[in-house]
Amino acid sequence: MSWQLGPEDLPALALGATLLGTGGGGDPHIGRLLVEQAMREHGPVTILDPDDLDDDLLIIPTAQMGAPTVVLERIPAGPEPLAALRRLEDHRGRRAAATMPIECGGINSMIPLLVGATGGLPVVDADGMGRAFPELQMETFSVYGVPGSPLAIADELGHTVLIDTGEDNRQLEWLARGVTIRLGGVAYIAEYAMTGRQVKDTAVPRTLSLALSVGRAILDARRDHRDPFAALADAFSRTIYTHIRELFHGKVVDVERRTTEGFARGRARIRSADGDGELEISFQNENLVAIRDEIQLAVVPDLICILEEETAEPITTERLRYGDRVRVIGVSTPALMRTPEALAVFGPRCFGLDREFVPVEDGPGGEIAGTADARMEEWEQTPVR
Amino acid sequence: MSWQLGPEDLPALALGATLLGTGGGGDPHIGRLLVEQAMREHGPVTILDPDDLDDDLLIIPTAQMGAPTVVLERIPAGPEPLAALRRLEDHRGRRAAATMPIECGGINSMIPLLVGATGGLPVVDADGMGRAFPELQMETFSVYGVPGSPLAIADELGHTVLIDTGEDNRQLEWLARGVTIRLGGVAYIAEYAMTGRQVKDTAVPRTLSLALSVGRAILDARRDHRDPFAALADAFSRTIYTHIRELFHGKVVDVERRTTEGFARGRARIRSADGDGELEISFQNENLVAIRDEIQLAVVPDLICILEEETAEPITTERLRYGDRVRVIGVSTPALMRTPEALAVFGPRCFGLDREFVPVEDGPGGEIAGTADARMEEWEQTPVR
Repeated sequence: MSWQLGPEDLPALALGATLLGTGGGGDPHIGRLLVEQAMREHGPVTILDPDDLDDDLLIIPTAQMGAPTVVLERIPAGPEPLAALRRLEDHRGRRAAATMPIECGGINSMIPLLVGATGGLPVVDADGMGRAFPELQMETFSVYGVPGSPLAIADELGHTVLIDTGEDNRQLEWLARGVTIRLGGVAYIAEYAMTGRQVKDTAVPRTLSLALSVGRAILDARRDHRDPFAALADAFSRTIYTHIRELFHGKVVDVERRTTEGFARGRARIRSADGDGELEISFQNENLVAIRDEIQLAVVPDLICILEEETAEPITTERLRYGDRVRVIGVSTPALMRTPEALAVFGPRCFGLDREFVPVEDGPGGEIAGTADARMEEWEQTPVR
Repeated sequence: MSWQLGPEDLPALALGATLLGTGGGGDPHIGRLLVEQAMREHGPVTILDPDDLDDDLLIIPTAQMGAPTVVLERIPAGPEPLAALRRLEDHRGRRAAATMPIECGGINSMIPLLVGATGGLPVVDADGMGRAFPELQMETFSVYGVPGSPLAIADELGHTVLIDTGEDNRQLEWLARGVTIRLGGVAYIAEYAMTGRQVKDTAVPRTLSLALSVGRAILDARRDHRDPFAALADAFSRTIYTHIRELFHGKVVDVERRTTEGFARGRARIRSADGDGELEISFQNENLVAIRDEIQLAVVPDLICILEEETAEPITTERLRYGDRVRVIGVSTPALMRTPEALAVFGPRCFGLDREFVPVEDGPGGEIAGTADARMEEWEQTPVR
């Protein structure tokens, strides 16, 4: 079943995608403005359900690559991601039937919509991370056998780079990151070209729908003066992100952040309102681990989201600052992201953390008041329309 | 007129090319071994005189890119430069009629011969620097309007990168250098694809012949117990490198060298035998400027060559060390490398030196004993056979 995504959907999508971005994935405001402008000119974008894809369609995901700290100051001109897609199409000698996100995030859920609007392409309702991760090999596509190569990079001057590292997605990340750094810290890419069959076998399904429903739940609750955190927990309970936990509530008392080797790296300290205890969160573009008094509350690939304490507005790592009053929530990732193969690609050790993965629902985090864990453990989730 | 270059020519070619490399261009021993092995397997290589090229032939130069300090420890496997050529051919949809060096040097005069031997291609007797320079935009090709893009990079694993920065050869260097650094500091490239007409219009002609004649002059003099420096001066006098000067004679007393941003950068101090004065030479892969007591004796693009004091063996920047007893010579570059357009691309200011170009023959360096400057100022030089 395909459906149309229009400008009226963008506020909810940007909000939900940024929350799923778990600190990274780019700024929601910039991403939303880009797509709004494109949709005003070209109309709404057709969204394809992954189950409806013919097996032999060519799907080429598109994305922004770089440090979110840089993107705040270096906004895309607009044509770059479509230029990257075209470059890869030219190399393969075949046009893509659709594009798709590689991750959820304020920018990277939007970039494929920009490509869809300006290039006249539908966008597949799925992605390769089910959240955001900082590196290109950290894709369910990669985990389940799709090579990221060849990868095309484009910048705002029309310059292009095409990288082919065969099956080696880690080397692909290494070289593409090097080029991105030399392009000023941000670039636009097309990669992980795959068939419709491969999308169905390897992608996290319906994450645009998920972002929309999460965003709408928060916006509706705010409008109706209900608790947005309860609404959020309720929205997740109808998805494959089964468990949601409140990890901490307090005030940001320190943010250490540096842009290095093409990433925004650092840590934040949050002190509880009653002065009782402190949470430390480490990040590499995205939040990686939440630790309270030496106890690990949540760790990648589970989601660690820092939300404004009243509105549940997600705060990205590059915007986080001293004095922010926040609630930190942990969300369980879908089953296909917790397999041994998946944890070997984006588990804690892949980020240099000497830690084991412990599911957030097995940790000491509490349930959000007035909610209960989802009972629906099965794989499918309902499309939003 | 085409001619055959065989394994018996390699010692002289390696020696002469290393001297023309003016401190850079790669180690002669490694380059020579690579081509010797290829010629043992595939036979000699056909060398084409640039004047004989049909206007519409496709010529694709090949080279090694990287810091010479790294190449000493990371020797090529062999197939990389041909893989880069093939990648660029595939991209353009056309086979090259010949390859060509982009610079003179112990490695980079040899890489095209390796490609020629293993790929069954002739090699054009010309290059784009008439010496060695550290950066890709520093080519007479670039000065006179040939774009370096698209550029193909290949490594020993068969991974490839293709970069297209349109007319912007400086950005091409910047991105290719970034990829080279991430490939471990050395990579193999094919770029500046051009027509036979463009070779005739923009290349420094017959520099393989030049390297051979310079190398033979030194080797013959050593064998016959004549002064190799006088033989060297005599050899240059029959070329478009009209003037040769002795700049200094002494012992290396200090070498400061670091491999940084993909280059070997630093400076050497040489003290005269009688303790009277000191010469300082700065380098970025190649020797850039020679200064004695605050007086500039020679500067890029003129050649500054550090030679062992008895044998005239050239010493590359990465091998230079405390205690070396050396004579430093300056050699004038051909007229097409001293035009305002050329100096804007590889004059002193292009290396961050706040200096004017002063021809070495107008400086205070002395003539080499028993020689006189060439009287032949015109453009052409005689092929060696």
